[in-house]
Amino acid sequence: MSNEIKIFSPATVANVACGFDVLGFCLDTIGDEMVIRKTEEKGIRITKIEGYDLPFEAENNVAGVSALAMYNALQPDCGFEIEIYKKIKPGSGIGSSSASAAGSVFGMNALLGYPLNKTELTNFAMKGEALASKCEHADNLAPAIFGGFTLVKSASPLQILELPTPLDVFATLIHPQIEIKTSESRAILPKDIPLSNAIAQWANVGSLVHALHTSDYDLIKESLIDVVIEPYRKQLIPHFDDVKKAALEAGALGCAISGSGPSIFMLSKSEATAKAVENAIRQVYSTTDIQFETYVSKINVEGIRVL
Amino acid sequence: MSNEIKIFSPATVANVACGFDVLGFCLDTIGDEMVIRKTEEKGIRITKIEGYDLPFEAENNVAGVSALAMYNALQPDCGFEIEIYKKIKPGSGIGSSSASAAGSVFGMNALLGYPLNKTELTNFAMKGEALASKCEHADNLAPAIFGGFTLVKSASPLQILELPTPLDVFATLIHPQIEIKTSESRAILPKDIPLSNAIAQWANVGSLVHALHTSDYDLIKESLIDVVIEPYRKQLIPHFDDVKKAALEAGALGCAISGSGPSIFMLSKSEATAKAVENAIRQVYSTTDIQFETYVSKINVEGIRVL
Repeated sequence: MSNEIKIFSPATVANVACGFDVLGFCLDTIGDEMVIRKTEEKGIRITKIEGYDLPFEAENNVAGVSALAMYNALQPDCGFEIEIYKKIKPGSGIGSSSASAAGSVFGMNALLGYPLNKTELTNFAMKGEALASKCEHADNLAPAIFGGFTLVKSASPLQILELPTPLDVFATLIHPQIEIKTSESRAILPKDIPLSNAIAQWANVGSLVHALHTSDYDLIKESLIDVVIEPYRKQLIPHFDDVKKAALEAGALGCAISGSGPSIFMLSKSEATAKAVENAIRQVYSTTDIQFETYVSKINVEGIRVL
Repeated sequence: MSNEIKIFSPATVANVACGFDVLGFCLDTIGDEMVIRKTEEKGIRITKIEGYDLPFEAENNVAGVSALAMYNALQPDCGFEIEIYKKIKPGSGIGSSSASAAGSVFGMNALLGYPLNKTELTNFAMKGEALASKCEHADNLAPAIFGGFTLVKSASPLQILELPTPLDVFATLIHPQIEIKTSESRAILPKDIPLSNAIAQWANVGSLVHALHTSDYDLIKESLIDVVIEPYRKQLIPHFDDVKKAALEAGALGCAISGSGPSIFMLSKSEATAKAVENAIRQVYSTTDIQFETYVSKINVEGIRVL
């Protein structure tokens, strides 16, 4: 077995409109690369970070914290070096910290001969995620590690369901280059919500799960509705309503905030529609003075992979 | 084509623990019988009611109101007589009014050569349901008319999803002979609920739909949890906690309030377990001075049927 592994750790979309805090899916064309290396010297060392300015001390780095949690639990007879080639911008709302937190433990697990299953890996990765977001959650980690669409049924004890991915679903994303503080996007949410809105939301969650199982694209479209979170958080994202309108007019099945934003995602049936949607939303943002990037991606049903 | 049809219109369980106002399933061993007869004389007449004391005037009778709604919309060149052999006690929480409201329109539709689909029938039946419950809802009507497990994705426009029914699921029911006013069981509910509870509930709804699709009995068990409604409504049902404890100890996958109560339902894997559960809950209620009835039923995947 090699002493070194290079991996692709993908970006992910959490919430998926109706499934705040529980649903997520995995992207394919956006992600970090990481190299994990077994060393004789014990401990966890981050030896290289490219792309963004992040801390090298393992205990202050998301990838380092998850690696340390796993390392301290397994106490292997070796150490690990981690190189991070960061391509997902921190704070973009597409699982940047999750990609780091998941990547290090995935790589270590592979180098150790896969002693841990994916749920156990996710549990360790949640320790790193907590460094970034101040709470242990798995709605980005689950799709990064399992691939496809996932449902975090419960965070403690951790229980992750792998949902089916219809063949022709493609994602479009726009990342407006603005900063939304996670604390702000949490603080803007109400503690209580109307029961009637909650009912509409769980009807849509049940309906989306059914639609994924039956590859019913019309029903996917009718289920990608968020009556609970979007009315609050969209205020933090300039031109959200215009992007959504343009995306739906261009044929998207749905359009909603990715995670806590500022990225916005759309799902479409077919890559051609996903690209038409990308064109439509680029036109909306081109008329503003906000920098932005857009992406089109198939749904990555594999999750993190060895390169 | 015959001018007369005799049907079995089944009892149903609404809410199914986590799915307040949206989920339901259909019972097989409990239900009303009805005879619908085409007549030369125009109009809707209820000519016989056995079992319970209900109004004969069509506009004051649940079955009559739904029949009139359909009759006035279709304006057929005939009239209909309805005989009701009521076996489901009104107010029991297992869809007594829905069985009546659905039965009349189902029978008329059959005698007219099936001009309406099941969703259209449900729409007319909702008019009758509204007479009993003061609001148009379909969470009992949908399983009565479609059979199996159903999800009412939206009441307006009406959209009903047919969920898969795992082969070995059986229901146990207990009907304590107490009266809960629908107005009281509605009034006891909060207008707002904590977002954290709503999240747990929609995780369970998504998870239950996934479990039904994958025939995952362990996951059905873990999903049949109601953190939103049960804490309020169980106060109206004497010995609810004892029944639930006994049912789960006897092997039930889950136990929750049927509709707005007072009936309580359990789901089990296998008829033998469902009967063991029935024994266990009979023992709980035998020590009280409340009259009660219990039932065991397979899930009726057909819904209303011609006898």
